[in-house]
Amino acid sequence: MSELRNDRLLRALLREPVDATPVWMMRQAGRYLPEYRATREKAGDFMTLCKTPELACEVTLQPVDRLGVDAAILFSDILTVPDAMGLGLYFEEGEGPRFRRPVRSRREVETLPLPDPERELGYVMDAVRTIRRELAGRVPLIGFSGSPWTLATYMVEGGSAKNFALAKGMMFDRPATMHALLDKLARAVTDYLNAQIAAGAQAVMIFDTWGGVLAPDDYLEFSLAYMQRIVEGLAREAEGRRVPVILFTKGGGQWLDAMAETGCDALGLDWTTDIGEARRRVGDRVALQGNLDPCVLYASPETIRKKVAKVLESYGPGSGHVFNLGHGIHPTVDPDHAAAMIEAVHELSRPFHQ
Amino acid sequence: MSELRNDRLLRALLREPVDATPVWMMRQAGRYLPEYRATREKAGDFMTLCKTPELACEVTLQPVDRLGVDAAILFSDILTVPDAMGLGLYFEEGEGPRFRRPVRSRREVETLPLPDPERELGYVMDAVRTIRRELAGRVPLIGFSGSPWTLATYMVEGGSAKNFALAKGMMFDRPATMHALLDKLARAVTDYLNAQIAAGAQAVMIFDTWGGVLAPDDYLEFSLAYMQRIVEGLAREAEGRRVPVILFTKGGGQWLDAMAETGCDALGLDWTTDIGEARRRVGDRVALQGNLDPCVLYASPETIRKKVAKVLESYGPGSGHVFNLGHGIHPTVDPDHAAAMIEAVHELSRPFHQ
Repeated sequence: MSELRNDRLLRALLREPVDATPVWMMRQAGRYLPEYRATREKAGDFMTLCKTPELACEVTLQPVDRLGVDAAILFSDILTVPDAMGLGLYFEEGEGPRFRRPVRSRREVETLPLPDPERELGYVMDAVRTIRRELAGRVPLIGFSGSPWTLATYMVEGGSAKNFALAKGMMFDRPATMHALLDKLARAVTDYLNAQIAAGAQAVMIFDTWGGVLAPDDYLEFSLAYMQRIVEGLAREAEGRRVPVILFTKGGGQWLDAMAETGCDALGLDWTTDIGEARRRVGDRVALQGNLDPCVLYASPETIRKKVAKVLESYGPGSGHVFNLGHGIHPTVDPDHAAAMIEAVHELSRPFHQ
Repeated sequence: MSELRNDRLLRALLREPVDATPVWMMRQAGRYLPEYRATREKAGDFMTLCKTPELACEVTLQPVDRLGVDAAILFSDILTVPDAMGLGLYFEEGEGPRFRRPVRSRREVETLPLPDPERELGYVMDAVRTIRRELAGRVPLIGFSGSPWTLATYMVEGGSAKNFALAKGMMFDRPATMHALLDKLARAVTDYLNAQIAAGAQAVMIFDTWGGVLAPDDYLEFSLAYMQRIVEGLAREAEGRRVPVILFTKGGGQWLDAMAETGCDALGLDWTTDIGEARRRVGDRVALQGNLDPCVLYASPETIRKKVAKVLESYGPGSGHVFNLGHGIHPTVDPDHAAAMIEAVHELSRPFHQ
């Protein structure tokens, strides 16, 4: 493997000194980039884009090339694991993801196969290897997975949900069935992330997109406990370096203390939490990633610069901060505005690292 | 006016002793009730239901009759004030609310009229008077309004929004225009709620449905500051009793301390906050209303009972708790499940008030 020339991300995630705050954006390989839309067009449909390693590599590298972000993140879908379990993932135009075979009964949970990542998810591992080769050490590559609870909501609902009536119904009335499903998913996600690490992912992130719709007790029992189990099962070293693990629960600002106790290296924050306040709460247990309101990128470059400065000042001096948006970049954002944010982070953060 | 025979709600909102914890549900006059669907059918469309005092009264009383809740809440829409300002509210089937004339420029903000509640919103005041007469002192009537920020999002976006790109765009790039709009809305909402109180509302609630999509600083500056201004401008006594004010920011669990400082009497909580933890944070400054996950009502009556017990235990002994869902009741809930919740609250809360 090529030597890593920009290791700001890995250093910041481990709270080691850096020259400037590293920055990347959730969904940075996405529709706001004309070059992404061109590759997507070429692929024909979204799943072909995910399942063709060369194309997944192409879009993964686009924001690195254009914007100078300090990390690449594997381009993939969060629902690859349930798809590999045989649920039949498909996308209906403007409808979001759907599964042909939702999982609702105890029997359906018990007969779910545990995928072999190099076989059923080989296209993801091939993408990781291709991206690492093409990155050639420019920036590190982040691997990722959806959290067990987040995957379970889609698997039980059969797609996106408004109120999570079915998933929560199972959780409330048949908790043993939900736990059996989450247990299987935790094992599958652990295998999946370990395979990504073996293939070349240099950090991994667990996206708990729907943990924030739970009441506190339910969050601890049905989401966080399974993320903790994954953290405990991950290979934490590869190529002679520690592989940092980032947990992100959207809407999880009230539960940072519990999240910091899981053994992960960093927490992702959405924009509803003050990052300075979060830093005081988590102390030196974990690094923090975030957390500009993604809508700030609709504002003028001058406003973007001011808002970047505010987040940097709120975090304060010293390492342990990875700058990011508080959620994925919106598809209608002007790429030049994203560039203004990246530039502002690199420039304005230097005084905090002297 | 008839003497109030059940004043648990008003007493609990002021943290005065009660025999049992009062309970009502946000959106309790709603589609989950067959009798509501019948009245809605009779009205023809939603706005006719809102604008016909006899029909608004009919649906307001339905949950009181069927479920024995401890409060009635005025049936109305949160967008009546912008409608009265001339924006032309309408509903497209399955599309949510829309405005014919959104407000986007400084000039459009400045020329917005301040409605006279007894004239342009006379149908609301007539509904309040009709409901009070028909309630005949059974339970108190809660009046309400949307918060200035929440109303502003709909007015700028022209309806429901996904990312609030336009409203936040104005907030970030043209803060003076947004402040002018919020200032006008704070005045209009103050007049509107004072008129409801004069017409017979015995408590009022401000629904800040979209405050939770803001970053902390933006929340304080663009949402909470204007709710505080309303709280300061309200008539706090009527018919010889204090008129309590409840603030509810959905997703506002991280900002309870600041909310408790506004001078309001109670805070509404969504279900992502532990109510016992919230009580420790707000101390004896305010009462708390909430906060069962609305999806619990999809579970069995046995599970509902257990979850009710958990919320009551978390709050603990003493007054200052109004039981509610953490958000509006979902339209597909079985009314018998709502009844099971109400019954469980009344029965299981008594030991906490001895």
